[in-house]
Amino acid sequence: MSIVTVMTPDRPGLSTPRLIGLDWGTTSMRCWLLGDNGRVLDSRRLAGGLLDMAAGIDTADPAARARAYQETFLDVCGPWLRADPGLPALACGMVGSAQGWREAGYLDVPARLDITGPALTPVPLAIGSMHLVPGLRVPSEPRHDIAGDVLRGEETQVIGALQSIERPDAEHLLVLPGTHTKWIRIADRKVLSFTTAMTGELFALVTQHGLLSHTGTTPRRDDAAFARGLTAGFSARERGLAAAMFGARALVLDGLLEPAALADYLSGVVIADEVRHLLPHHGGAERIILCGNDDLCRRYAAALRMRDVRTQVVDEDAAAAGLWSVAVASGLVAVGGHA
Amino acid sequence: MSIVTVMTPDRPGLSTPRLIGLDWGTTSMRCWLLGDNGRVLDSRRLAGGLLDMAAGIDTADPAARARAYQETFLDVCGPWLRADPGLPALACGMVGSAQGWREAGYLDVPARLDITGPALTPVPLAIGSMHLVPGLRVPSEPRHDIAGDVLRGEETQVIGALQSIERPDAEHLLVLPGTHTKWIRIADRKVLSFTTAMTGELFALVTQHGLLSHTGTTPRRDDAAFARGLTAGFSARERGLAAAMFGARALVLDGLLEPAALADYLSGVVIADEVRHLLPHHGGAERIILCGNDDLCRRYAAALRMRDVRTQVVDEDAAAAGLWSVAVASGLVAVGGHA
Repeated sequence: MSIVTVMTPDRPGLSTPRLIGLDWGTTSMRCWLLGDNGRVLDSRRLAGGLLDMAAGIDTADPAARARAYQETFLDVCGPWLRADPGLPALACGMVGSAQGWREAGYLDVPARLDITGPALTPVPLAIGSMHLVPGLRVPSEPRHDIAGDVLRGEETQVIGALQSIERPDAEHLLVLPGTHTKWIRIADRKVLSFTTAMTGELFALVTQHGLLSHTGTTPRRDDAAFARGLTAGFSARERGLAAAMFGARALVLDGLLEPAALADYLSGVVIADEVRHLLPHHGGAERIILCGNDDLCRRYAAALRMRDVRTQVVDEDAAAAGLWSVAVASGLVAVGGHA
Repeated sequence: MSIVTVMTPDRPGLSTPRLIGLDWGTTSMRCWLLGDNGRVLDSRRLAGGLLDMAAGIDTADPAARARAYQETFLDVCGPWLRADPGLPALACGMVGSAQGWREAGYLDVPARLDITGPALTPVPLAIGSMHLVPGLRVPSEPRHDIAGDVLRGEETQVIGALQSIERPDAEHLLVLPGTHTKWIRIADRKVLSFTTAMTGELFALVTQHGLLSHTGTTPRRDDAAFARGLTAGFSARERGLAAAMFGARALVLDGLLEPAALADYLSGVVIADEVRHLLPHHGGAERIILCGNDDLCRRYAAALRMRDVRTQVVDEDAAAAGLWSVAVASGLVAVGGHA
């Protein structure tokens, strides 16, 4: 919980904290202490996210939730705040959901990515100030009973990613792999459409709690098994995902797949099944921006390569850059001579 | 644990136990005490199956496994055996898998359904005699790395179901819904092909352990939500299963689906996704034989009706009739004048 306090006297202010940024999701919380130009001065990561917050409190009671969130926030970021009591904080992610600290609403797509002050939701705080970034929404169509879609946190990652890619005003397809992978089509700094696939969650459930996972062995990374799973997933059009996944058991029983490699095979099956649906669903692409953790980006890049799609990986810390952008656009931080 | 002992002196032998039949699967165990003509004299059901057997023993040790299986068998069926010490027992299901009591092997498809003595695997037993029914297998194709398929227990249910349907020698498509639903194409009392979809397992994992299940409400049966899920699943061709399932969350957030009805909506999505793949994959059908528990058969019948397929439901106790058939064909029970 240490704060970087490197003083650079010849460039005064360069290490001055300007913003606390938080990406607070369902299963993890990442916090950054940001200086001028969004420079990362310090960062912290907490393994637990909203799921842990819900333990031991009445989640239906907004006051109880607010107390719990503030307590966790001050636990993690208190040292930064005590050193700089006026420091503003800005958070994105599920912390702004109805089950979070406070409902931060949604912007309906197509949505411009220059999120400014009026779109933010202030949160009462005992010390400092806190605002929440809204999520994005594809509204459901009640007349035809067609489900819409939602995301929270990824809008901020996309805003950050735009700073790392060439021609940020052009049309792009971004994929943010995770528990709930997001495919996001943008153009002219506007989110045109997006789709969520709960591929990562299905993989985690099957390999952690599923019957196929009773192999009696410890999983071991096996890139060849992953590649075989990709091929199986790409050719599952006739049988569907629920049948293609069961193929892993038959291969193990026939001695053609090591039990320890079952998880990597399944990872390939589910990712390929997602790509073969959502790549054409979003109109295809020659090049896709991946934003997420290294291992998942590597897996999606391999799957997309089999569809002749090139990829560029943007660090998942894009959220920190996105939070800084939103804070500047909404006047939470003064840009001054450092912008 | 009572035995039916109704004596009918004018028809001697009608209540005489002839066979203990067991359908011993991964998550449940059903046992029948069968009299002449396979008449059910008594039955027992145990909620735990192979998964419970594995607790507390070294599953890699065949002797430890055999002891545990024999102990459970005698716990459940001991009273029947002590009353009739010479009573033969016949078991189908995962009890015959490599992780079970003893590996009972597979018959490769196409496989004739007149399973006889040489196909059975005897199991040493302290009291009485026990045989295991082999499973069926579609072998994997190593040259093209195409996964095969396996089933255990369903072969016996199909043998039993044949006794309840018209024109048992004709071509039929059977669907046995469950944790791992089986689609089985038969003709001339031969299994031509089959496919497993782990639809039931995906549903159970998502609704019991998944993030969507954090609704804070108790699920409530909602047939309308199930029907809406079916429609969504049937139209998920473009987005795929992992995206269609997430639609449930968007509908809840948009106030268009009661949180308590989320499970029924998801049930519709996963079943429709399976049907839209595996019905054409097995060449379609005007009529399908469903064999399984009432609730699941009702759900599959509703899904198939939307594809203009008529259904006939055969009781899941078809396994008892199947076990009797195999016991007769293999000479485990003497048919005598009662056949």
